[in-house]
Amino acid sequence: MNPGDRVRVERAGATYEGVLLPSTGPDSLVVKLAGGYNVGVDREDADVTVLESDVYSIEPGGSPDEGGASTIEFDDDLPTVSLISTGGTIASTVDYRTGAVTAQFDAEDVLRAVPDLAGRANYRGRVVANILSENMTPAVWRELAQAIYEEVEAGADGVVVMHGTDTMQFTASAMAFVLGLPVPLVFTGSQRSADRPSSDNVMNAVSAVEAAKADCAEVLVCMHETGSDDRCALHRATRVRKNHTSRRDAFETVGNEPLGWVDYGAAAGGDDDAMEVGFRRTFQHRDEVDLDVAPELDTDVELVKFTPGMGVDALEAYLGATDPSGVVVEGTGLGHVHTDWIPVLRDLVDDGVPVVMTSQCLEGRVCDRVYDTGRDLLDAGVVEAGDTLPGTAKVKLMWALANVADVEDAMRTSLAGELTEQSRPWT
Amino acid sequence: MNPGDRVRVERAGATYEGVLLPSTGPDSLVVKLAGGYNVGVDREDADVTVLESDVYSIEPGGSPDEGGASTIEFDDDLPTVSLISTGGTIASTVDYRTGAVTAQFDAEDVLRAVPDLAGRANYRGRVVANILSENMTPAVWRELAQAIYEEVEAGADGVVVMHGTDTMQFTASAMAFVLGLPVPLVFTGSQRSADRPSSDNVMNAVSAVEAAKADCAEVLVCMHETGSDDRCALHRATRVRKNHTSRRDAFETVGNEPLGWVDYGAAAGGDDDAMEVGFRRTFQHRDEVDLDVAPELDTDVELVKFTPGMGVDALEAYLGATDPSGVVVEGTGLGHVHTDWIPVLRDLVDDGVPVVMTSQCLEGRVCDRVYDTGRDLLDAGVVEAGDTLPGTAKVKLMWALANVADVEDAMRTSLAGELTEQSRPWT
Repeated sequence: MNPGDRVRVERAGATYEGVLLPSTGPDSLVVKLAGGYNVGVDREDADVTVLESDVYSIEPGGSPDEGGASTIEFDDDLPTVSLISTGGTIASTVDYRTGAVTAQFDAEDVLRAVPDLAGRANYRGRVVANILSENMTPAVWRELAQAIYEEVEAGADGVVVMHGTDTMQFTASAMAFVLGLPVPLVFTGSQRSADRPSSDNVMNAVSAVEAAKADCAEVLVCMHETGSDDRCALHRATRVRKNHTSRRDAFETVGNEPLGWVDYGAAAGGDDDAMEVGFRRTFQHRDEVDLDVAPELDTDVELVKFTPGMGVDALEAYLGATDPSGVVVEGTGLGHVHTDWIPVLRDLVDDGVPVVMTSQCLEGRVCDRVYDTGRDLLDAGVVEAGDTLPGTAKVKLMWALANVADVEDAMRTSLAGELTEQSRPWT
Repeated sequence: MNPGDRVRVERAGATYEGVLLPSTGPDSLVVKLAGGYNVGVDREDADVTVLESDVYSIEPGGSPDEGGASTIEFDDDLPTVSLISTGGTIASTVDYRTGAVTAQFDAEDVLRAVPDLAGRANYRGRVVANILSENMTPAVWRELAQAIYEEVEAGADGVVVMHGTDTMQFTASAMAFVLGLPVPLVFTGSQRSADRPSSDNVMNAVSAVEAAKADCAEVLVCMHETGSDDRCALHRATRVRKNHTSRRDAFETVGNEPLGWVDYGAAAGGDDDAMEVGFRRTFQHRDEVDLDVAPELDTDVELVKFTPGMGVDALEAYLGATDPSGVVVEGTGLGHVHTDWIPVLRDLVDDGVPVVMTSQCLEGRVCDRVYDTGRDLLDAGVVEAGDTLPGTAKVKLMWALANVADVEDAMRTSLAGELTEQSRPWT
């Protein structure tokens, strides 16, 4: 048996039929099932029958540390999509030595692991990082922005970034502020690793490539729309949130339907039918803006979440020790904190440190003109961020402090779809 | 015209018909409309016609600072419900001098402002605080717990706490850990003040009283279930979250349907039809547990939210300056933080400071056995809080540190419905 053969694997009462993929170690077999999932099987005591040889032609992988163009032949009739890997579940497989999931694939490996990507585009592959996304930092955001800029400059018709799901919304938001984009930039990831029968990596990756070929030149997050394998949602980067620890449809656009979708239904059988990509609202089209990058970020921004029992002493200790250049407050309700906090926030503002109010409610907009506490906050110079999500506000403030003259005005204005038009708060 | 008269008020093209309530100042009229809402009208240039005198008999209010029994006559056939006011929108009205909403009612005033409460129960009224809920503190939680204990000991068949919505979930959770309850304890509030046509204060207060007469001896939050005036939801205190800044149906039970409901439909016309109270799942019935209070709290607990760009320096500065006796981490995804944080958390645990992991996803449970970061966190002694909400985990840790010997075991165990039974994280 060889990678590319169609096989039946029987072990411990379970039977899997599909295409044998390059294994991830001497003790394992990886089989791509008909539904598109990959399953890992312990090689010991496994009974393997080759049903058909060479169903797929699978190239041996290159060095994981080496970026560069795909080895697949260029097709003039297809658009070119750059695949950029940053690590995470979608670019990982089980490391059987420790029993845990570690990131060990580069973009070339993803192509090999997801044969369904073949024939949809010409691919360029590139590795910017190989980390679980909880280890993502603003420094890597800058490298990623530069890589995306270079890929688009080199002619990519769309870019797909493979990213861990934990902090995908933060990195995607950062790209939305940092880059001017004439082409789509689509983030995707996986909530279940490739060795699990319920893995979402194939459908998400294929859908992201289809979105990257579409006309929406915005930063999007492409993940399962429901628990089924029928549709992916396309979320605007600055409005999306991972709302569940483990579900495949963990990502949600806050306070609205997702901007668009990729209908995977017709292609769910594994054939190469064209998939439908659609959008519900207006969006930035291809070539509406020029390619641009402004990757500087002021990273001395603190996100402070107010909860009952966090006294003004704790606030002063935290801010005194970190000496931030900007503060995002995750307040309660319409944008409130304990009254005792207000003089401390006023002192920050008086010292030229912008203080931006968001709400831990997540849905709805802050409005500090209703209650005494809010009016006192406005008097102290705190800036209302409308319905900007707290995490997005933090990323935006990092960018605004390094790039614009009037930071407060920028925080009240939508720069990348993060803030919806003002509406009457009570209606 | 006098309070209690049925009147028609016309001003600036608008006409209101209803019962005149005691006004909140010399410049205003307050009219209770047929639908149950109160509306405030500027007295200047208002044209008032008395349609019928003395529709309601309205007692003059007592001193706002004075607690004590209701002036309404006791009815042997009705249960006794204690109304405890802590302030917030439901106990407030517009202060026309400043244009803002300030809390100025005690429980007696609420009875006067909500005539629909009459005839549903015998009431005891009590003021524990008169604050907007962003100013609520653990010290007030302790006073509130003592007051509830005393009311139940004095024979109350149920207790309703009127509370600002901003931090209601925290106070309600605190009561769930602090009190052993043989009767229902129902928190309610209002997202729109009484002077607004869309105020939810009448329906929420009446529904809360009905829930306090039911058989569920748990701590519940009673708020609008939808944007309509047909049903209130009854949320278990430890699983509820204010998810919207301004909607009347802002409160949601995370990851499940609410525990119960109050069907307001039949009574929406303002008559005294019995309203249906129902429950979806099992709950603690009346008299299953004895009345008890353990109000001590260790307030030196910090809730630390990890977001990208919050470096280990900021973490060390924050925790070094606050010297907490317990830490709740609001991590990403299944319960992760940047790898650099792990030694700092390990040092805390080694020093006897419990570190509890929750997820900012809010839905789903933490599971640190899947990825390297999580396994390292478990090795460091971090305690997984299952699907306990981050805010609830903070309140619980305050209580556990002051009341139980094995804090880590307590954080892994459901004490008040805050943690659902272990399930397979991927299924």
